[in-house]
Amino acid sequence: MANAQETTRILRRLLAGGLTTRAERLLARMRPADRGPVLSGLTLPELRTVIGLLFDTRRAASTLRELPPEMLPDVFEAIGNERLAQILERLELDDMVELVEWLDEERRAPVLALLPGSQRGELEKAELYPPESAGRAMITSFVALQEDTTAQAAIDRIRSGAPDDEAILYLYVVDEKTRLRGTVPIRRLVAANPERTCAELMVSDPVCVRADADQEEVAQLVGRYNLLAIPVVDDDERLIGVITVDDVIEVIHEEATEDMYHLAGLSDEDRVFSPAHHAVRKRLPWMMLNLCATFTAAWVIGLFERTLEEIVVLAFFMPVVAGMGGNGGIQSLTVITRAIALGELEFSSGLRAVGKEVTVAIVIGAITGVASGFMAYLWQGNPYLGGVLFVTMMATMAIAGVLGAAIPLLLQALDQDPAVGSGVLVTTLTDIFGFTAFLGIATLLLDRLA
Amino acid sequence: MANAQETTRILRRLLAGGLTTRAERLLARMRPADRGPVLSGLTLPELRTVIGLLFDTRRAASTLRELPPEMLPDVFEAIGNERLAQILERLELDDMVELVEWLDEERRAPVLALLPGSQRGELEKAELYPPESAGRAMITSFVALQEDTTAQAAIDRIRSGAPDDEAILYLYVVDEKTRLRGTVPIRRLVAANPERTCAELMVSDPVCVRADADQEEVAQLVGRYNLLAIPVVDDDERLIGVITVDDVIEVIHEEATEDMYHLAGLSDEDRVFSPAHHAVRKRLPWMMLNLCATFTAAWVIGLFERTLEEIVVLAFFMPVVAGMGGNGGIQSLTVITRAIALGELEFSSGLRAVGKEVTVAIVIGAITGVASGFMAYLWQGNPYLGGVLFVTMMATMAIAGVLGAAIPLLLQALDQDPAVGSGVLVTTLTDIFGFTAFLGIATLLLDRLA
Repeated sequence: MANAQETTRILRRLLAGGLTTRAERLLARMRPADRGPVLSGLTLPELRTVIGLLFDTRRAASTLRELPPEMLPDVFEAIGNERLAQILERLELDDMVELVEWLDEERRAPVLALLPGSQRGELEKAELYPPESAGRAMITSFVALQEDTTAQAAIDRIRSGAPDDEAILYLYVVDEKTRLRGTVPIRRLVAANPERTCAELMVSDPVCVRADADQEEVAQLVGRYNLLAIPVVDDDERLIGVITVDDVIEVIHEEATEDMYHLAGLSDEDRVFSPAHHAVRKRLPWMMLNLCATFTAAWVIGLFERTLEEIVVLAFFMPVVAGMGGNGGIQSLTVITRAIALGELEFSSGLRAVGKEVTVAIVIGAITGVASGFMAYLWQGNPYLGGVLFVTMMATMAIAGVLGAAIPLLLQALDQDPAVGSGVLVTTLTDIFGFTAFLGIATLLLDRLA
Repeated sequence: MANAQETTRILRRLLAGGLTTRAERLLARMRPADRGPVLSGLTLPELRTVIGLLFDTRRAASTLRELPPEMLPDVFEAIGNERLAQILERLELDDMVELVEWLDEERRAPVLALLPGSQRGELEKAELYPPESAGRAMITSFVALQEDTTAQAAIDRIRSGAPDDEAILYLYVVDEKTRLRGTVPIRRLVAANPERTCAELMVSDPVCVRADADQEEVAQLVGRYNLLAIPVVDDDERLIGVITVDDVIEVIHEEATEDMYHLAGLSDEDRVFSPAHHAVRKRLPWMMLNLCATFTAAWVIGLFERTLEEIVVLAFFMPVVAGMGGNGGIQSLTVITRAIALGELEFSSGLRAVGKEVTVAIVIGAITGVASGFMAYLWQGNPYLGGVLFVTMMATMAIAGVLGAAIPLLLQALDQDPAVGSGVLVTTLTDIFGFTAFLGIATLLLDRLA
């Protein structure tokens, strides 16, 4: 990336000096994936010039696919409808679906009208599937063969072949109704005796996925079975597309980002170089919610005003209770949400996981409770204060473990994203419980503490 | 996975009833990847029986590779040295390296002594590379060809071929010193005229990686350039291995888990079904550190004992300051660490990112500051209290933004993991700053607040 910055600087100098041929050559030398980071450092007018150059050298489509999506609206503005349609025409279905998502509503119809009918039909069909589903991520160029096709005929078919390079990792064997019967890895085809038939060569009962399945499920299957591509079938088991592993890798990154972001109360679109006003708009609602949560905790403390007035020292230890409980809860939450995301855990095996987290929390609560009680006693010289802190810590950590483990599982069982909102819920409830326990027990022991 | 639980139950019933043939058939019908989750629900004696059955049907090696690693020590205990060596012998180098890592120190030498010399040599060479490096993740079976080899000769080579299925996604073209010159995707080979040479067919200047590169770098390259496999070279550019995309997917999952875990202060090995005592041992040091951090915050509050004695209401708002600042800091931290992990950001472009995070933090701090100041005023009827809270919130949020963005970048620049410890550092420093600001300003305005 440091390299990308340097290249951006050179490119800008070439553009400023009007040295378009050299700029063109510089762009041509780069791999498409390297153009994205370089171009994202340009100003809008510079970007327009570059896109013009890329059109001249027929590199526009592969470059656009690699740009950070937040740049697309600006880029689209710099491109006329005809050129945009030319770009879309050259893309695989999955990339086309993704680019069109960023197109203004009013330009959509005129641009799509310029596409060949078959492509427009495929695009419209793909858009009927839910967002983040297999049907939107698949490509539709693949080689489908009959069971009696020989290895040699299959190879000839590839040689004559229209379908794009990318798709040919497996050949697909279908029956007369285009229902998926098996897959032939291309490496097996090459190694095989040319006379053998696909039925002999194929892996039958192949792992496949429905078009309306969530992309997270696709990623889990590809990861679990070490696939290079996964076939997509419709409700009648007919083969309608393929998702390749490079797209799956993107999904895995996306899903991991989502989970991390959701735990911190961030929106997916709030990326490192999103404009600041965009980030503010995305984060503000969450922070207002969090504000209400913290005020609830404040109100709980307010209920114990009398106790605090008598023993102001109690206020010192409130961050200890909140900080330890919150952290314990977030640890359990992280372990559980990650296990759900990796498909290691469902609601049914969840009870065992909750039990384990609570056991861990109680043990850690006991040990840190003893430590904090002892430290409090050393500092303030009151053994009762130490005792109150010890009991509070144990109870709060246990509750934090229960909440951190159970909340994501409950959300998952309710078909909600297990990470969304669970962070604030766990810490708020833990805080409220912790403060109530700490100040409540202190109130009961007021005479001893004073 | 719900399915896996059900299958485990059936398997256990078959084993309990001594119906080993049926158990054997059940296991044989499963895909290797599905055996892992099923077997992880067995008791140790059951597992031993199953491993015996798998040996009989020569499925032990592929199954062991799929077991959750935490189970391996127990499983190894149930297997004699000869059988263990047989399993290792059937594995690719990368899987062998991984399994051996879980082998007891005292069994290592006797087991490895039973391996063929060449495999032992490869294993020992791989172990010279740093943990989580390309050299440990690569396999060493690949097809290397000369530039003048024809497509037909290459295909014949694959047909005659010893090397494992998995490896043949690309053929590698090397010069007389086995230095990597280019790659030929197997799909291109199949489609090519049989007379063409590898020099004509190859992609020259292929993306490759050094054996001592970190696996995170490998994952970034494979993702960026949509590769199915990446060649590994030594310091002299000689081709020594290949990492395939299925292993890269595992790395991506691992790295994402690591980042999430590190942000929460968890150790990588602390998984959802790790034994509780294991989890306690891993989490306790971190929680003790966190305890010290919270006690530091407590000590800071203690410095303002007088102020709190006069205006106990201030204690109510401490969770508001800590909760909002902590959350803001974690948001910035998450955005930045994720961007670093995805290779979107390095130290050089970091200043821009810090600037953006701080801007966002100040705006959000101002808005939530006004809201919280107003709410505090409504609750307690003192406008000065509202003012103090407003100023504190703005300042604390700004500091949280700076720390959340800068700390991971600094750690990264110092060649440290940007996620390890940054969570506790950000929240502790934010808390200390927030409490000092809040109680400090309040002390200055004591007359107005009372």
